[in-house]
Amino acid sequence: MDEHEFERAIAVQPTGYPGGYASLMTSGWTIPGGAINGGVTLATAANALARQFAVEGPHVDPVCVSAYYLAAAMPGPAECRAEVLRSGASLSTGQVGLWQNDAHGTPVERLRALATFGNLDAIVGDVQTSAQPPELPDPGDCRDLSQLSATLDDTEVMRRYDVLLDPATSGWLEGAPSGRGHMRAWFRMKDGYQPTPLLLLQAVDALPPVAYDLGVSGWVPTLELTVHVRARPVPGWLRISLTTVNFAGGLLEEDAQVWDSSGRLVAQGRQLAKVIRRRPEGRRD
Amino acid sequence: MDEHEFERAIAVQPTGYPGGYASLMTSGWTIPGGAINGGVTLATAANALARQFAVEGPHVDPVCVSAYYLAAAMPGPAECRAEVLRSGASLSTGQVGLWQNDAHGTPVERLRALATFGNLDAIVGDVQTSAQPPELPDPGDCRDLSQLSATLDDTEVMRRYDVLLDPATSGWLEGAPSGRGHMRAWFRMKDGYQPTPLLLLQAVDALPPVAYDLGVSGWVPTLELTVHVRARPVPGWLRISLTTVNFAGGLLEEDAQVWDSSGRLVAQGRQLAKVIRRRPEGRRD
Repeated sequence: MDEHEFERAIAVQPTGYPGGYASLMTSGWTIPGGAINGGVTLATAANALARQFAVEGPHVDPVCVSAYYLAAAMPGPAECRAEVLRSGASLSTGQVGLWQNDAHGTPVERLRALATFGNLDAIVGDVQTSAQPPELPDPGDCRDLSQLSATLDDTEVMRRYDVLLDPATSGWLEGAPSGRGHMRAWFRMKDGYQPTPLLLLQAVDALPPVAYDLGVSGWVPTLELTVHVRARPVPGWLRISLTTVNFAGGLLEEDAQVWDSSGRLVAQGRQLAKVIRRRPEGRRD
Repeated sequence: MDEHEFERAIAVQPTGYPGGYASLMTSGWTIPGGAINGGVTLATAANALARQFAVEGPHVDPVCVSAYYLAAAMPGPAECRAEVLRSGASLSTGQVGLWQNDAHGTPVERLRALATFGNLDAIVGDVQTSAQPPELPDPGDCRDLSQLSATLDDTEVMRRYDVLLDPATSGWLEGAPSGRGHMRAWFRMKDGYQPTPLLLLQAVDALPPVAYDLGVSGWVPTLELTVHVRARPVPGWLRISLTTVNFAGGLLEEDAQVWDSSGRLVAQGRQLAKVIRRRPEGRRD
């Protein structure tokens, strides 16, 4: 099979239980501390929900997904429980939870999401946009995060994709954050996997925490992440812009815009994240 | 009792069923077509979830709420079903559905939401913000939407609050939209009710659809709405900025920032909305 790493990572199989889908979270997608990257966890759950929608009709593309992170997902088996809440003519809405057993064998829900799916090829019409894609130097003139051993460390997920950061937004790597709360980067999968709607759920959470550009260090777990998939991406590099405007009370929003190689805004993501000035210990709060 | 209109509108009573809360959606909060305003519907469901969290502890303030609108809520009885998914030290997460019987007496879910609640008074710390409150003319120099009979029409909800629109963003009222996708306004309840965290869930959905400033007319139902409540608001006028950058395939995002009278960014809302060039018929899709 010529299946790609991302497809393997988010693969699910029906368990036989109605709405049940089994997956195996692999250690190749971990962040510092050993938890699975939040975007991959979300894409896995969304993939299960896509399978559940496919039972009923053509609404298999994520259009809008909101995930609440209840506990860190860890490498190992997981079960998704997907449910269709409403089937509509052009859009359908459902819910999915991703569960893993804890050390005592007790199922613990790691992520709960609500989502509206549709057929992106059927969502057509005028495009009236005032958003501008980020202006980036050529990829060769950007900072390749996967080549920086300090960021790699125990961050397995960085071996899966190229994140080429605009040098103008990379000062935090040398202890000189801009303080503006902004990062811009090129993004693609290392194994040649081309962008899909499910990959966009991962892409919006692929860059380092934008808090780093505010001079904040530590672990910045996602509490909630909502992604609007605005178009099916064409093959090629993605460009990602990540910004925050309000870091207050230890919480900050992270706004991601993802552009495909045709210059189309294909996804908008917003997350609420919490700054914890230590390494993760499994539980997100 | 000196209870205010908004408190009455979102009031819930335990039904006796675990997690069950009854409410009465009142006709004073309808939008054109007769459905209940989406922000009020969300605040009602969030109020039920707050009651459910209160059973367990101090996490009674909404911090992050994501609602998916499944069908239009109509005046009449409703039942909320609230469930705590996770109780944490500083934040707790839950789910709530708002149900109403259809014409055949069959319960239909109108809204499903996931939410993280906490104690906003305990969420303290530095504020590092680059967001700027909207600059607005004095309220007396703005356009009072509740005084414009054309917008009032059958829009009961506009009788509940003052929306004073910056004349610079009100050209669409005279058929001259700016095309920039932007509105700015002062906001307050007419009966003197002062801003609360639950009112912020309503405030992010209180202005007319920002699509009108793109020259789009019609019904613009919300598919999904996520609100981050970033601080407890102080008494006084709220200022709301509403923007969109991408109207494509009949869908657009609406970004709301809400500022309190102390100049603090108290809420960020984003919704995905669909433009339907006709009046509503109960079902949202």
